Amino acid sequence: MNDAPADLLTVDQALAVLDEAPVRPRVMRVKLQDAEGFRLAAPVVADRDYPPFDKSLMDGYAVRSVDLQAAPTELNVVGEIAAGQSASVSLQPGQAMAIMTGAPMPDGADSVVPVEDSDSAGPNRVRLLATAQAGRFIARRGSDCAAGSVLLEKGTKLEAAQLAVAASIGAAEVDVFARPCVAVLSTGDELVPIDQTPGPAQIRNSNNIMLVALLRRLGCDVTDLGSVNDDPKLIRQSIEKGLQSDILFVSGGMSMGQYDFVPKILIDLGVDLKITKLRIKPGKPFIFGVKGQGARGEGQVYSPLAPCPSPLAPAFVFGLPGNPVSSFVCTLRLCSRLIARMSGWANLDRWISAKLSAPLETNGPREFYQPAVFDGSIVQPLKWKGSADIYTLAMANALIVRPENAPARPAGAEVKILEIPS
Amino acid sequence: MNDAPADLLTVDQALAVLDEAPVRPRVMRVKLQDAEGFRLAAPVVADRDYPPFDKSLMDGYAVRSVDLQAAPTELNVVGEIAAGQSASVSLQPGQAMAIMTGAPMPDGADSVVPVEDSDSAGPNRVRLLATAQAGRFIARRGSDCAAGSVLLEKGTKLEAAQLAVAASIGAAEVDVFARPCVAVLSTGDELVPIDQTPGPAQIRNSNNIMLVALLRRLGCDVTDLGSVNDDPKLIRQSIEKGLQSDILFVSGGMSMGQYDFVPKILIDLGVDLKITKLRIKPGKPFIFGVKGQGARGEGQVYSPLAPCPSPLAPAFVFGLPGNPVSSFVCTLRLCSRLIARMSGWANLDRWISAKLSAPLETNGPREFYQPAVFDGSIVQPLKWKGSADIYTLAMANALIVRPENAPARPAGAEVKILEIPS
Repeated sequence: MNDAPADLLTVDQALAVLDEAPVRPRVMRVKLQDAEGFRLAAPVVADRDYPPFDKSLMDGYAVRSVDLQAAPTELNVVGEIAAGQSASVSLQPGQAMAIMTGAPMPDGADSVVPVEDSDSAGPNRVRLLATAQAGRFIARRGSDCAAGSVLLEKGTKLEAAQLAVAASIGAAEVDVFARPCVAVLSTGDELVPIDQTPGPAQIRNSNNIMLVALLRRLGCDVTDLGSVNDDPKLIRQSIEKGLQSDILFVSGGMSMGQYDFVPKILIDLGVDLKITKLRIKPGKPFIFGVKGQGARGEGQVYSPLAPCPSPLAPAFVFGLPGNPVSSFVCTLRLCSRLIARMSGWANLDRWISAKLSAPLETNGPREFYQPAVFDGSIVQPLKWKGSADIYTLAMANALIVRPENAPARPAGAEVKILEIPS
Repeated sequence: MNDAPADLLTVDQALAVLDEAPVRPRVMRVKLQDAEGFRLAAPVVADRDYPPFDKSLMDGYAVRSVDLQAAPTELNVVGEIAAGQSASVSLQPGQAMAIMTGAPMPDGADSVVPVEDSDSAGPNRVRLLATAQAGRFIARRGSDCAAGSVLLEKGTKLEAAQLAVAASIGAAEVDVFARPCVAVLSTGDELVPIDQTPGPAQIRNSNNIMLVALLRRLGCDVTDLGSVNDDPKLIRQSIEKGLQSDILFVSGGMSMGQYDFVPKILIDLGVDLKITKLRIKPGKPFIFGVKGQGARGEGQVYSPLAPCPSPLAPAFVFGLPGNPVSSFVCTLRLCSRLIARMSGWANLDRWISAKLSAPLETNGPREFYQPAVFDGSIVQPLKWKGSADIYTLAMANALIVRPENAPARPAGAEVKILEIPS
């Protein structure tokens, strides 16, 4: 291991290191239909007033409110305006026009009477059963948003509603932050692929499929490099391949044992290890390194159809513990920060306050992330058997965060939880 | 409109109707690598004990605890066991074996001393600086889970941790519920595609891109049928095409105006309208219909690579209001229930209790879903301008649910919110 001064950082210190990493997100232009799930690299601005005209909010009759100070009142129907059409004439005293929801108000009209409040009174004649107030059932021009106003800020995630906003003002293409390209590698003689039967001292490689899914959920384009045996030459080859990506995730081979080659190989390959150990539970062995200077991807033209961009310095490396729960927690709590910065936004974290269903004991000297089930109000801590207990993690939808040396908490106390994305 | 007795249902009544719809989810077998985001159609069961042997949890020395009742103690090192290997001999009194994290304990050993608590004491000799207790730093065979235990229940969503569990026991293929195949269609003369400049009385079709994104987020395979003008023949053609899917979503053309053809055409095509109006705000015009009898997809062999299965009765239809906020709320609150049932699980809803940042007025006679921002503890109601105000919805990450005729609530009161998926 190297003797980095950053030995045994707290989680907050580690996050500060990640916030200093020389990240510059790539920007790409995509069709709006392909933009789902990306974050805006530039604001979306209204190109004109919306609605662009005074618009009826009801199916009914466009009227002059002065004509309808008493009810019932009969008016002459002088036309009809469907959505997508405009009236060619102005409304005169004593007149009404049939109007559809979404259609532009005719000149002269200042109110709408819903069709439910009307009766026919013969050809081209309507009996209106309600009085009218000026402005009622009308959306004024520009009342949704005025020309030039920022409708979606830079950094906004484009989901259903945001796509509708961008579509409504004709942003048929948008600038978004590209997904980070990441690679996942596991090391260990004990690992066999998931479709093979392990020998008596072997286990299936569950870390890769887990990390691939979690990193996709966090917004990455993921390459699965599989697993390699504890052979320095093979590990080095795979790590060199992984360093072509924006971020390489290596799990296993990270602690003090004599077969743990990864830190040595990283140093050998010119990776500057910024974090080597962490006071987090589960997940003590944890490495973060940077290879090369400058801003990766700076000035690159990026196409969503092209493969991951050719390597420009720097690349980042996370070394994760071999056991899956630790890998999961470290990725969700720490690596997500760098991913967020590379994706052009501040943070993927989502903290929620929740009431404990059961008491919690005093916590030890490491920040602790305890698997739990959150029902929208109450959080139930799950009994788990340590950092190899992926089975309990799989029943959780949240992690209770226990600060270092946190005191015991009674049932009913409020705690901070981190949701597990799904 | 038809005169269905189900006129003006409450939201709960509408949900009850959806819970009665004749749904039978399709099941398909997929490789675990392709199973991300799907829900299990059958439980995942442990094929053997995990761990399958007593396993070291530390890098260090496997010892007999009786040899280490005092510290320091020197022992003869008679071998080493890497992860993936097994010891060929038993540990005798006075002996230790070097052992790696994850490696099987040798016979005779009952404890591990971490490498940090050791010094070399010459060739094949170690000085151990700590005493040992039986069972310490060991995971017992079967302590994670015993052979035959259910690790993932039917209906579990396969995300990172669940995939790791399935991988760990060699479930290289799993039975999952297929995604519902849905089609999205908008109607209206006023609509133009998002890359065209609308005329003075036109608007861009933002409903389709919104519904496509939302329905994908809710777990559907979505076909975008675009928009059609208010022409009964064209609408009928598109609806017939959409009824090839499991669920057709039609937005617009739903209310009482004379250009609202959709309900008539649906009845004409043999669709049984189970819901025609709803007491929900926003979103009053709302249709749910069923075409045909029997369970759609029953007995079908389904391949994830094949297109949507050929039409078997019944197909379902949702008619949504033309304005996007109403469409969004109805889809998230109501249509999601049918999607959930077709995906083989109970409910997509996710309620959270949150404290109001500001008072709320008395609610009217319709259940009301108010766009809001939830920060993990406090929920801030957003001022919005009615059901056409997609701009405010795009700033929200949650909807505050106001029951029918709910009384005013002060700041600080707890309310139920529905998260907007993202």
